[in-house]
This record gives sequence, structure tokens and C-alpha cells, in this order.
Amino acid sequence: MNIHQKRIEDIQALLEEKKLDALVLARPLETYFLTGYFMEGVLLLVTKEDVFGYMPKMLFDDFHSKVPFVKSYAADNARAALIEKRDLLGVKKSVFEPETENYLRGKYWKEHGFEEFSGITSSLRLRKEGAEIEILKESCRIAAKAFEQLLPGIKTGDTEREVANRLDNLMRAMGAKGPSFDLIVAFGENGALPHHVTSDRKLRDNESVLIDFGCVYRGYCSDITRTFFHGTPDAEFKKVYDIVRKSHDEGIKALKPGLSAKAADKVCRDVIADAGYGQYFIHSTGHGVGLEIHEAPALSLYSDEKFLLDKGMSVTVEPGIYLLGKFGVRIEDTVLVTDSGCEVLTVAD
Amino acid sequence: MNIHQKRIEDIQALLEEKKLDALVLARPLETYFLTGYFMEGVLLLVTKEDVFGYMPKMLFDDFHSKVPFVKSYAADNARAALIEKRDLLGVKKSVFEPETENYLRGKYWKEHGFEEFSGITSSLRLRKEGAEIEILKESCRIAAKAFEQLLPGIKTGDTEREVANRLDNLMRAMGAKGPSFDLIVAFGENGALPHHVTSDRKLRDNESVLIDFGCVYRGYCSDITRTFFHGTPDAEFKKVYDIVRKSHDEGIKALKPGLSAKAADKVCRDVIADAGYGQYFIHSTGHGVGLEIHEAPALSLYSDEKFLLDKGMSVTVEPGIYLLGKFGVRIEDTVLVTDSGCEVLTVAD
Repeated sequence: MNIHQKRIEDIQALLEEKKLDALVLARPLETYFLTGYFMEGVLLLVTKEDVFGYMPKMLFDDFHSKVPFVKSYAADNARAALIEKRDLLGVKKSVFEPETENYLRGKYWKEHGFEEFSGITSSLRLRKEGAEIEILKESCRIAAKAFEQLLPGIKTGDTEREVANRLDNLMRAMGAKGPSFDLIVAFGENGALPHHVTSDRKLRDNESVLIDFGCVYRGYCSDITRTFFHGTPDAEFKKVYDIVRKSHDEGIKALKPGLSAKAADKVCRDVIADAGYGQYFIHSTGHGVGLEIHEAPALSLYSDEKFLLDKGMSVTVEPGIYLLGKFGVRIEDTVLVTDSGCEVLTVAD
Repeated sequence: MNIHQKRIEDIQALLEEKKLDALVLARPLETYFLTGYFMEGVLLLVTKEDVFGYMPKMLFDDFHSKVPFVKSYAADNARAALIEKRDLLGVKKSVFEPETENYLRGKYWKEHGFEEFSGITSSLRLRKEGAEIEILKESCRIAAKAFEQLLPGIKTGDTEREVANRLDNLMRAMGAKGPSFDLIVAFGENGALPHHVTSDRKLRDNESVLIDFGCVYRGYCSDITRTFFHGTPDAEFKKVYDIVRKSHDEGIKALKPGLSAKAADKVCRDVIADAGYGQYFIHSTGHGVGLEIHEAPALSLYSDEKFLLDKGMSVTVEPGIYLLGKFGVRIEDTVLVTDSGCEVLTVAD
């Protein structure tokens, strides 16, 4: 039994537990999670006993040969064929996940007797296991290794975009499919915008460089931020950098099973607030990373106090201080919660 | 007045025409179309007289400085603040576009008094105008030029992924932000799968190469496919290639304002069917290209007969023949419908 078959069985166990009879999935992210096949246009109907796939003729041969454990059908109207099957099987309570659907398709399911039911696939995606941990680690390692190779070549006069392109090339040369988001390269005052859009601005002597990057490797995302000074750092940069570094390190020291996501955020936030920079830490401490670059859980002021970290969760720890018009510092790693703490995955070796 | 202010005025004229009082937009694609600012988290409320933006504090300073023509506000709960404004203004009929929303946000708008109304922004996006035509042309030119540079270097032993990476690098070196979709490089029998996923398969002597590619340049996508034979083509490849070439060329000759999208599909389809390969042309003839790699209109068997092509529409023409287990041929260009015909945009100079 491969990892996808196991996940289908896990879904079926959840259906049993929650007294549901069938789940329909349509977004490529979820159908990929259950089959290893990433393509818009494949619909899955998971019942307690079986799993059926409906798709256009154009995709059928390839899907059928690669995903033999799904009973698949080519259909001009895949939605209608899926519903016909559901009705034929006499399925009673069928559901869709509102958080994974677009408005029109969700509405269609609802109009055809599917009820909303949240959190089935996301509960399985929350804890990484088996082969996916190794893939996630490799995604993180590639990104970290690429940065190591990038760093010595960054020089005065480079544009942000040139640096981003070089980093992108390095990651793909190591087997990544591409970047996991629009890479952020921010020189000087651009670093003070957490969501700066990489531009043609050139690097000058003696200013800060913030690079927020990651790649997709076999479907899994990595996420890192590194900040450094190009030249001789002034006292203010050094001070701010040390505070962010301490916040980041304390966060990583604290993360372990049983710690709430909200408490994890507080550990990092307190270090920055205690140093007098609380108002300049203008985002959350971290987020889950996996098939999506941002997924559950959030490590945030607004996280549910009762949500506890657990073994297998992969999250970022990324405190920052942003001084508008001057510079920003963010230090971010992707970590995996272990039995007794967490392991930093974004390391080069 | 810049292009974004003009588009806002166009939306306001549509609101007037359709007897609507306000439109809410949340997806980055649409907010970008109206403001030039691409970011998840910005909500726009367009009324007949005004346009308001709501966003997290983290985005406010940057948005406000770059988009001064929108009255923008930072809000912890941007949705609630937007609705409060709507109610304060006494707006009567407020709507959202079901086709641009995810399920949960669409449901939220509906629960808060917004009605569904389709096609407002998409009707403006359908015809390209002014500066966006130049940007689209440059996106297409970059992709075509990159292929020209790529071609002489393709050699026996290259993997599909290596070729895709080189093409990606070439496009980004010319100013593209990145690829407009997962580039498809398909050697030999892989070309028979229209949605082949680029792999580590190596190129052998005497087999076909199909490359489906494009880039994003300043928000606009390009889309091209080239097929060629690496070595000495056999008679079957030559025959199939000539049929697809003829189908493609006839399609481009036929495209003009007033031709229906369905008729455009038929022109290409008939050439292939008449040559006896109808059953192997297993997808639509083309699709719109712009801010999205696939957008309206579709040139398809299933297109509405009454939908007529018009000046400013940019579409692909991409007939293909797929012989499972052997090879596939697809020839695709992005074209712009002009006053009296169409202009092929995917040319190197």
C-alpha cells in the first residue's frame, strides 16, 4: 500500500468516525494529496468503501495508468457522472469541504445535495508523515543550499530581480520545480515592507539585504528568510538584527508538542516587545508549510489557545522588525515538530 | 488619468448601466486589474461615485502610496469595515462576482447582503486596450525570443527538465517574472499527452520534441507551443505535422471580428478531421490569454454560437494531434484580434 492509498483509507476512517458516507474533492491540491496526480479537472468521490475518479477524456489514459487504485472514468460532464454514481450507490450523507472549493463549484455541490463539512483533508495534511517528511526536508535543504551558493556572489550594483533570478536558477538546478512563491529580494528601505515586490532597484554599498525564498520540490514547499548587511553594519542594524535573532532562537527553543500555537507566537513576540520594538513586529510569528506555502497551523496572536502543536507539524518561525524608510530584518526557518522539540529543516546539509 | 483610473470609471459606468450601486472585489487578479497592485488581502468596494480599499495594517502604507486614487483604510477586520462603509453610504444594491470568489468568501458576501452578479470585470478584461496591449506583446515577444535562443542548444541526452529550466532562465533574463504555467517539455511518446508533466526523461536521437511555454511579464501571460523533430523525421511525423500546421494556419487566416468562437474552432477542427485525424484532436482550439493564462473566450466545440470575436481579444490558436504511445504535435500561437483579422504576437521580433 502506497502513501496515497493509506491517505484514502485515512479519509475513509474519518468518514466512518464522523458518520458521513461520501466526500467529493475537486481542487488539484487535494486530489494530488490522495493520488499523487496533480491536474485541474479530476474529480474524486471517496466513499467508505471505494474511491472513484471522473475526468475529461484527455486526462483519462494518463490518470488511469498512473493511479490504478482509483476507479476512474472519462466523462464529458464529470460532475454529472460523479453525482449519478453517488445516487446509484445509494449514498446518504455526502459532503464537500467549503474551504477547498471555489464559489461556483461549491454552490453546485450544494445544489446537488452535498452538505458543507470542513477539515477532513486538512486534518490529515496537518501532521506530516513517512515519505512526505523526507520530501519536505529535501525541499528545505535545496533552498538553504542554494542560498549558501548565492551569498558570495551578491555585489554592489546587482538588481533585486537579478539576485532573485540567480537564486531561482540555483534551486531549479538542484531539482526544485520552481520557487514556492514570488521570491522577495529587498534592498535597504525595501526590506521594511514585509511583502515587498522584487524590483529593478540596485544594491548600494552599506545597506541591508533581506531575501525571503523557498522552492517546490515534488509538491512540497520550503520557506526561509535571511537578512544581512552588505558592507559595514551600523549600530541600529546590529541592534535590531540581534533582537530578531534572539526572538527567532527563543521561538525555536520553545516549540514542542503540547505548546499552543498562540504561546509559540508569544515567545517570539515578547522578546521583541521587551526590547522596545513591539510595534514594529507587524505580522504573525509563523505558519504551516507543506503542499501549500501557507497552510495550517498559524502561529499568531489570533490563534485558538486550545490549538496545540504536535509531532509532525511543519511550521515557519519568522519574527521581524520593520522600520519604515530605513530597513527591515526578518529571520525565518521552516521547522518540524518532533517528539520533544523541533528540528530546523532549512539547513544546507 | 491612468489606465487603472479609467478601468474604475468603466466599472462605474457598468454599475450605472446595470442598475447596481456597488461591487465588492477581493481576488488579487481583479484588484490588480483596477489598481496595478497585486496582493492577497486587499478588498475593494467600487460604488458609482467612488472606490474604497480595505486591508491589514501591514499593507496599508505601501498600498496608499502606490494607489493614491483609491480611498484606502487599514482595518483589523477589513471585511467588516467595508460592509460598515457600504451601509453608511446607504448603498442599496451591492453585488459580488461569483466567478471570482472562493466559496467561503462568496458565502460571507451573500450572508451580508451582497447579491451574485457575473461578468462585470471579465467583460472589461475581454478586450485588451492601450498600455496592456503593449505589455501583452512584450510578454509574447520574450517567450518567442527565448525559444529562438533555446533551440540550437537542445541535444541528445538533455532531460525534459533541463530544457524547461534553460527556457525559464532565458525568459527571466529578458525581464519576465517567471513562467506563465508549468512549462511542458515532452520528448517522443510524452508529447501524446497534452498535459504531460515535465520529467527527467532524456532526449534520444530521432524523436519528436514538444514544448508548450510562456511567461508572465508585468502581469500578462504569453502562451506558445512548438513541435519539432530531433533528427530525421519519419513519414508519419511529417504527415501529422503538416496537417497540424495547415490547421493552425487556416485558423489564423480565419480569425477576425465577427467570426464566432465556435466557428473559429471549427475551421481548425475541420482541417484535421478532413485529413482523417479528427479523433486525435482531443481538446479545444484555443482560449483567451491575458492576466490569466486561461481566460475568456474559449474557442471550442462548446462555445456559444452567438459569441463573436472582437477587436482587442487575445486568444491562442493551438490545434494538435496526439498519437498515444507514439508522439504528439501541437502548434500554438497567441494572437490579437485586429480591425480586420488577427496579429500573431508570439514572434521573436
